[in-house]
Amino acid sequence: MLGLIPVLRTALHRPVFSRLNSSFAISNRFFQFNDCKELPDRKYPSFVANEYSKLKNIKWATPLNNILLVKKPKDQNVRLAMVNFINFIHETYSTQDNKVNIIVPYDIADELSQVSTKEPSILPNSTSSAIEIFTSQQINQIIDKTDLMVTLGGDGTILRAVSLFSNLCVPPILSFSLGTLGFLLPFDFKNCREAFNAVYSSNAKAINRSRIQCHVHNQKLYAMNDIIIHRGSLPHLTTIDIYIDGEFLTQSTGDGIVLATPTGSTAYSLSAGGSIVHPMVPCLLLSPICPRSLSFRPLVVPSTSHIMIKMRSRSLFNTPISKISVDGVLLKDLNDGDEIHIVNESGAIFQPNYKQILESNNNCKYSGIYCIAKTEYDWTRGINELLGFNSSFKGFGRR
Amino acid sequence: MLGLIPVLRTALHRPVFSRLNSSFAISNRFFQFNDCKELPDRKYPSFVANEYSKLKNIKWATPLNNILLVKKPKDQNVRLAMVNFINFIHETYSTQDNKVNIIVPYDIADELSQVSTKEPSILPNSTSSAIEIFTSQQINQIIDKTDLMVTLGGDGTILRAVSLFSNLCVPPILSFSLGTLGFLLPFDFKNCREAFNAVYSSNAKAINRSRIQCHVHNQKLYAMNDIIIHRGSLPHLTTIDIYIDGEFLTQSTGDGIVLATPTGSTAYSLSAGGSIVHPMVPCLLLSPICPRSLSFRPLVVPSTSHIMIKMRSRSLFNTPISKISVDGVLLKDLNDGDEIHIVNESGAIFQPNYKQILESNNNCKYSGIYCIAKTEYDWTRGINELLGFNSSFKGFGRR
Amino acid sequence: MLGLIPVLRTALHRPVFSRLNSSFAISNRFFQFNDCKELPDRKYPSFVANEYSKLKNIKWATPLNNILLVKKPKDQNVRLAMVNFINFIHETYSTQDNKVNIIVPYDIADELSQVSTKEPSILPNSTSSAIEIFTSQQINQIIDKTDLMVTLGGDGTILRAVSLFSNLCVPPILSFSLGTLGFLLPFDFKNCREAFNAVYSSNAKAINRSRIQCHVHNQKLYAMNDIIIHRGSLPHLTTIDIYIDGEFLTQSTGDGIVLATPTGSTAYSLSAGGSIVHPMVPCLLLSPICPRSLSFRPLVVPSTSHIMIKMRSRSLFNTPISKISVDGVLLKDLNDGDEIHIVNESGAIFQPNYKQILESNNNCKYSGIYCIAKTEYDWTRGINELLGFNSSFKGFGRR
Amino acid sequence: MLGLIPVLRTALHRPVFSRLNSSFAISNRFFQFNDCKELPDRKYPSFVANEYSKLKNIKWATPLNNILLVKKPKDQNVRLAMVNFINFIHETYSTQDNKVNIIVPYDIADELSQVSTKEPSILPNSTSSAIEIFTSQQINQIIDKTDLMVTLGGDGTILRAVSLFSNLCVPPILSFSLGTLGFLLPFDFKNCREAFNAVYSSNAKAINRSRIQCHVHNQKLYAMNDIIIHRGSLPHLTTIDIYIDGEFLTQSTGDGIVLATPTGSTAYSLSAGGSIVHPMVPCLLLSPICPRSLSFRPLVVPSTSHIMIKMRSRSLFNTPISKISVDGVLLKDLNDGDEIHIVNESGAIFQPNYKQILESNNNCKYSGIYCIAKTEYDWTRGINELLGFNSSFKGFGRR
Repeated sequence: MLGLIPVLRTALHRPVFSRLNSSFAISNRFFQFNDCKELPDRKYPSFVANEYSKLKNIKWATPLNNILLVKKPKDQNVRLAMVNFINFIHETYSTQDNKVNIIVPYDIADELSQVSTKEPSILPNSTSSAIEIFTSQQINQIIDKTDLMVTLGGDGTILRAVSLFSNLCVPPILSFSLGTLGFLLPFDFKNCREAFNAVYSSNAKAINRSRIQCHVHNQKLYAMNDIIIHRGSLPHLTTIDIYIDGEFLTQSTGDGIVLATPTGSTAYSLSAGGSIVHPMVPCLLLSPICPRSLSFRPLVVPSTSHIMIKMRSRSLFNTPISKISVDGVLLKDLNDGDEIHIVNESGAIFQPNYKQILESNNNCKYSGIYCIAKTEYDWTRGINELLGFNSSFKGFGRR
Repeated sequence: MLGLIPVLRTALHRPVFSRLNSSFAISNRFFQFNDCKELPDRKYPSFVANEYSKLKNIKWATPLNNILLVKKPKDQNVRLAMVNFINFIHETYSTQDNKVNIIVPYDIADELSQVSTKEPSILPNSTSSAIEIFTSQQINQIIDKTDLMVTLGGDGTILRAVSLFSNLCVPPILSFSLGTLGFLLPFDFKNCREAFNAVYSSNAKAINRSRIQCHVHNQKLYAMNDIIIHRGSLPHLTTIDIYIDGEFLTQSTGDGIVLATPTGSTAYSLSAGGSIVHPMVPCLLLSPICPRSLSFRPLVVPSTSHIMIKMRSRSLFNTPISKISVDGVLLKDLNDGDEIHIVNESGAIFQPNYKQILESNNNCKYSGIYCIAKTEYDWTRGINELLGFNSSFKGFGRR
Repeated sequence: MLGLIPVLRTALHRPVFSRLNSSFAISNRFFQFNDCKELPDRKYPSFVANEYSKLKNIKWATPLNNILLVKKPKDQNVRLAMVNFINFIHETYSTQDNKVNIIVPYDIADELSQVSTKEPSILPNSTSSAIEIFTSQQINQIIDKTDLMVTLGGDGTILRAVSLFSNLCVPPILSFSLGTLGFLLPFDFKNCREAFNAVYSSNAKAINRSRIQCHVHNQKLYAMNDIIIHRGSLPHLTTIDIYIDGEFLTQSTGDGIVLATPTGSTAYSLSAGGSIVHPMVPCLLLSPICPRSLSFRPLVVPSTSHIMIKMRSRSLFNTPISKISVDGVLLKDLNDGDEIHIVNESGAIFQPNYKQILESNNNCKYSGIYCIAKTEYDWTRGINELLGFNSSFKGFGRR
Repeated sequence: MLGLIPVLRTALHRPVFSRLNSSFAISNRFFQFNDCKELPDRKYPSFVANEYSKLKNIKWATPLNNILLVKKPKDQNVRLAMVNFINFIHETYSTQDNKVNIIVPYDIADELSQVSTKEPSILPNSTSSAIEIFTSQQINQIIDKTDLMVTLGGDGTILRAVSLFSNLCVPPILSFSLGTLGFLLPFDFKNCREAFNAVYSSNAKAINRSRIQCHVHNQKLYAMNDIIIHRGSLPHLTTIDIYIDGEFLTQSTGDGIVLATPTGSTAYSLSAGGSIVHPMVPCLLLSPICPRSLSFRPLVVPSTSHIMIKMRSRSLFNTPISKISVDGVLLKDLNDGDEIHIVNESGAIFQPNYKQILESNNNCKYSGIYCIAKTEYDWTRGINELLGFNSSFKGFGRR
C-alpha cells in the first residue's frame, strides 16, 4: 500500500531505536549483526547487448560479494521468505570462492533481532552458530557496499528500495513477488534459487528502466514511476503553466498533472487517461488530471525533454495551492510562482540560450535502473495479466 | 453474428421457396402447418405500475392465445430447443381453457419441415399425431395474430424479431438465451417453463425499451440499438451537419456518428466512447466515430429531441459519401445533401415554426418494446457480467 | 472562483458584524434598510407547458412582490450593477399596483451601507430620499419572503444563491452575467430591464433543473451540480462500494467519484470524462475520478435511482480516508464504513424490502429549480461557446 | 483531401497521355522540357548533430544541383506559386557556380505545358527564352537525380511526394504551405526565398521523421503517418490477432486498428483516441478503432518492435473481411489468415528463434525522412495552432 511509504521512508532515513545503545547490540543467537563498513566495496556489473534479445546480459567481471535485502514491512509471510532466502544464501554461497554477504537496512535488522526468538517456524536452519548479517545506521555506508538489491514484496517495495539510493547510482535489482502480482515482479519467490544463481553466474538478462529527475525548491528528487502535482483536498482548480525545452506549451487548469516514466505509464498516468508505454521507449508522459478542457489529450515527449511547470494559482486563505508527490509519496506544498523542472535522469538538458539551466547527470556508470527480467515478454504478460488489457465482452449476440 | 442479418432479414420479407406449390404443403407427420389467418386476433396486455418496483407488471385481461417463436438460424442446438419448447407448449397449454397457439415465421416452418425426419433426437415427443403450427408467407398476417414473441438465440435474434414489426406495435418479448450471454437475455432456456408460465399467468414484470425512428429517403426505419452513419471503406472523412430541434449544433468531420437508444448504449456507441446508460433513462445518445476533433465529447439528449443530420461531403468519383446502418444492418448509401431525421418512436416532435416536420407517432397502444425481465437488477448484472465493467487490476503493489 | 465559496457561505449563514448593535443601524442616507418580516409572504408562480416549446411559461396569478438580489462578492463592477438594478426597480416598480420590494442578504446590506458614501459613481440615482431595501440576519425570514431571485455574477453566484435555500423550495432564478460567461447565464446584464419586465409580466420561459439530495452523517445536503467523493491530499487510493437501488454495482478504487446532475455534466463530471447531458434528461451521472481500472466507463442512471456509496478503505495514520464536496464546497471528512445516500430531490426512493430507507421529498410545490431561459437553445449555444465543443482542426492537408 | 490521392498516385506511376508521341513534345515557348537523364547524379547531404539544438544541421559537401518540385494538383493558386518558385530559381541559381536544375513529375510537366498559354498571369517572367525544366516518364529516373524535394501544397502533398520514393531513400524535403496549415508545413510560401537559400547554403536545420514498413501479400509498403486495418462498409466486426516480437499480445474485435508513426500520432490515431507523440520519440503507436472492449487503451511500443497482425474473421458472403490503407490510400482487401508485418523502416527485427522473419533495411544512407524545420518548436506550435490542444473553457463561474 503506497500510503504506508511515507512512514517507512522516514524510518529508514532516521531510525530511532531508543532501546539500543549500540548498533550491533541487536545481535542474538540466530543473527550476528556486523557493520557493513567491513565489506569489500561495491562492484558494478556491465550490461552487454545481445544479438538475439532486446534485453541486456548482466556480466560480473569478478563475482558479486554483497547483496542488499529489502522487504515489505510488517508482513509475516514476507519475513518468513526473507529468512528462507538468508538460509539459502548462507548455505549456498559461503565458501571462500563464492561468499555472498547479506546486508539489510537497519530497521529490518532490528525486526530480525526481535522476531527470531518468538517464532520458531521462521528461525534459520543453522542454529549451531549465528548467521552473519551486515547493516548500518548510515544509509550511505549501505549504498557504498551494495552490488545487487534483492527485494521481497510488491512493486511498492521496489520503489522504496530504489528511493534509498535517491540521486546515486542504483544497483541492479532482483525482485521476488510473494503472492502479490506486479509489473516489476517477474519472479515468483518459489523460484528464488534459480533466479539468484543465474544472476550470480552472469546468466541473467536485465531491462533498463529510466527514472525522471525533478528539481523543486533547490532539491533534486528521483522518480521511477511518476511525479504528480495535485490540488490536494480543496475542490478548487490548480492552474499551471507548462514549458517544454524552454518554450511555453500550454496553461492547464484542473486537478493537476502527472509526469511519468514509461514504467509509470501503468500507474497513476493510466488512471488519468495516458497511453500504455513500453518501458524501452525513451520518453516522458505528460497527462492532465481532470482538466478543465475537452482537448488536453495526453502527450508523449522525448526522454531528452526538459519540462518546466510553473504554478500559477492564487493562494486561497494562505493555504498552499498544490502538492507534489514522487512515486506515491506526498512530499511538498507548492505555492504560486514555484517552478518544477523535470528531466530524464540521464537527460542532456537542452539549452536554447547557452544557459545552464540544470545539471542533470548523476555521474553514474550507467543511467536508469537495471531490473533482472524473466523473458522478453514480461511487459506483454503484465498488461494482460495485471491490467486485464483488452478484455473481451462476454456473449456474441450483438456488437 | 450481425453480419448475417441482411440475408435473413431479406428472407423473412421475401421468402422464395421455389420447390413449394402451396404454403402448407410443407406439413409432415410431425408438424401440421396451418395458416395463421384462422387464429383469434392479437391481444394487447396492459402494463401496470408497481409500488415496489421500477418495472411494470404485465396483465392479460383474458389469457393470451398466440405466441410467435423466433430463433437464431442454422444452429442445431437452437433448433432442438425450439422443438423442446413446442413440446412444452403443446403438452401444457392445449386444453380448451388454456390453449396456446404457436406461430413461426415461414422460413422456420420450412426449416422444421425438413429436419424432422432426418434427426430423430429432435423429433417432437408426441408422435401419435402431428403438432399444429401456424405460419404465413405474409408477415402482416403473422403480425396481426401475435400476442407475445418468444425468442431463442442471442441479442441479435431479438433485434431481428423486433425488426419484423418495423413501424407497427411490437408485442411483448420473452427471450431465452442458449449458451450465448446477452444484455437482452435475462432467462436461461433451462428455466423456460417457469418463465413462460409466469408470463401466461400475469405474474411477470417487464422493462420498456424505447426505439428510435429514422426518416431517410422517404422511408421510416426503427432501431432498438442504434443508427450509424459511417464513411464506409474509403479512408476519406465524412462531414455532417448536426441539428437538434431545428437548431444547428455542430459540423462533424470524421468516420461518422452513432445515434443510440439507452439499450444501444452498450453496443456500437460504447465502442465509440459513449457512456453506459440505463435503459430507463429517456434519452438519445449521440457519439462521434473517430472524429477529427479533440473535443467532441459524446452527448446525451432528451428522448423528445429531434436530431437532423445533413450530409455535407463532396462525393468523390461518384461514389456515395456515407452509409447508414440500422441495428447492425447496412441499409443505404448517403450522398451530399441527404437529410436524416431521428426521433424517439413516441417523440412529440418539437415544432419551432409551427411546421409539421415529421409525423412520429405509430398509433401503437404503447410506445417502446416491453421485454420480460427477470429482476430489477438485470442491467447491473449485465454490465458486470457481460462487459467486465470496472474490472480491477491484479496486484496491489502500486497504483 | 469556487474556492471562495466556503468562506462566503459561512458568512451568509452565520453573519458576525460585531460593530453593529442592531440589524438596521446600517441604514444611511442612500439606503434605508428594513426588516423583511414586514413584507407580504412568498408567492409561488405556476409553470405552464407550452405546445410550441420544451420550456415552461412562468405564470404569476397575482404580480410578484419581493425579489432577492444575490451578487458576486467584492467585485466593484458587480456592486455597480447591483445599484443600477436597484435604481431600475425603484424607478419602474414603485406604484401601488406594481410595487416590487428588494431584499438582499445581510452581508450585502452591510456592504451597501459602507460603500455608498465613498464611491459617488455607484450612488443611487434618487438621492432625494433613501431607497428602501429589506434584509434580515435570519436567512429563514428572507426565504419566507422571496418570490424570485435575481443573481448578478457568474455560475458560482447562482450555486451560492441556491444553497441559501438548502432543503427548501427554491424560488425561480433570473440570472445576469457581468462579463463572465456561464452555462446558467443566458442574460447579459445590459438587457436586465427587458428580462425582468418579461418575468414580471408572465412572458418568460423557464427550464427546470433538478438537484440531487445527499444523506451523509444524518445531514441532508442538496447539489445543483455535483457531489464529489475524493481522496484529498494524500496520494493513496480510496476504495468505495457502490450500490444502485440496493443492489451492489461495483467496488471502485481510485481518486474518488463524481455524482452529478445533468446541469453538473459540464462541470467536474466533464473533467472526469463524463458525457455532456442535456439538463432536461431525468438522470444522474456517475463518473469515476482517476480509477484504478481500464473499464470504468461513466454511467448514466435514471433520476429515480437511489445510489449508496460505502467507504471501504483502511484509515491510514488516523486520517480520514476521503472528503466529500457539494457543488464545489468541501464539507466533510469520510471514514471507513461511512454511507452516503444520493437521490434526486424529488426521487421516489425504490424500496425493494418495503423499508423506508430515506425520506426524499421536500414538500415543495415543485421539484427542481426553475431558471429563466432566454431561448430553447441556451444549451446548444453553451456547449459551443463555453466549452469549445467539437472544435475542428485547422488545416485540411491530412486527417 | 486525402480521398483524391488514389487517383493522383496512379497518375504519377502510370501516366497515360495519349495525345503525346514523345515525352518532350510538351515543351512550349515558356518551358523547355528535357529528360532528367542528362542531370548529374543525386547527392546526399549529411546531417550533423548540434550542441545547442535537438535538430540536425543539413550539410552539403558540394552544392546541391537538382530539386524535384511536387505540388498539390488542380489548384490555380498552387500552380501560380510553382511558376513563381521556378522564376526565383531560374533567376537566382543559374550561374555556372550555383546552377540549380528543376525537375517535375511528368504529369506536372504536362500541366505546365497546357496552362502557360491560357493564363498570362502565371507566365514565367523571362519570356525571352524558355525556362529549362527536367522530367521523365520513368519515376526511377527522377528518383536517381533528386537532391532535394520542394513541395507546394498541404501535408497531403508531402505524403504523396514521399510515396514516390516508396522503398528507396527519400531526399530531404522543404515544404511550403499555401494557405493551408499543416503539421509538416513550417514555412509559408511567402518566405520561400530565404528558406531555400538557407537550405542551399547549408544553414538549415532538419527533423528526422521515421516511417513504418508494412509487409503484406509479399509487397512492401511504407507509411509516413499510418497503416490502418478497417472493417470497411459492412457494419460487422473484424477480429484480428496481434503479436509483438513474435509473442501473442491480444485478440481485438472491433472496427480495426491503427498503426502509426509519431508523425502520424496527430492524424487518424488521434481520432481513434491515441496520445499525441513528439516526432522524435522512437516508437510505434497501436490504437484500436471502436473496439468491442472497455479496456483496449492505446499502446506505445519501441520503434524496434515487430508487430504482426493476423486476420481472424470468417468471411461473410465471400466478401473480404477488412481493408488496409497506407497514409490514407486504400490499398488492399484482407481475408481470413492474412498476415501483416509492421516494423520501423530502419528496425532491426527481433528474431527470437534465430529465424529471419523479414528483411527490413532499405540500404539507405540514412533512415527516416529529413524535413527542413523552421524552429525547435514547430511541434509545440503545431499542436496548439492546428489541433486547438487544451483549449480552455470560456467563463470562470464554475468548474
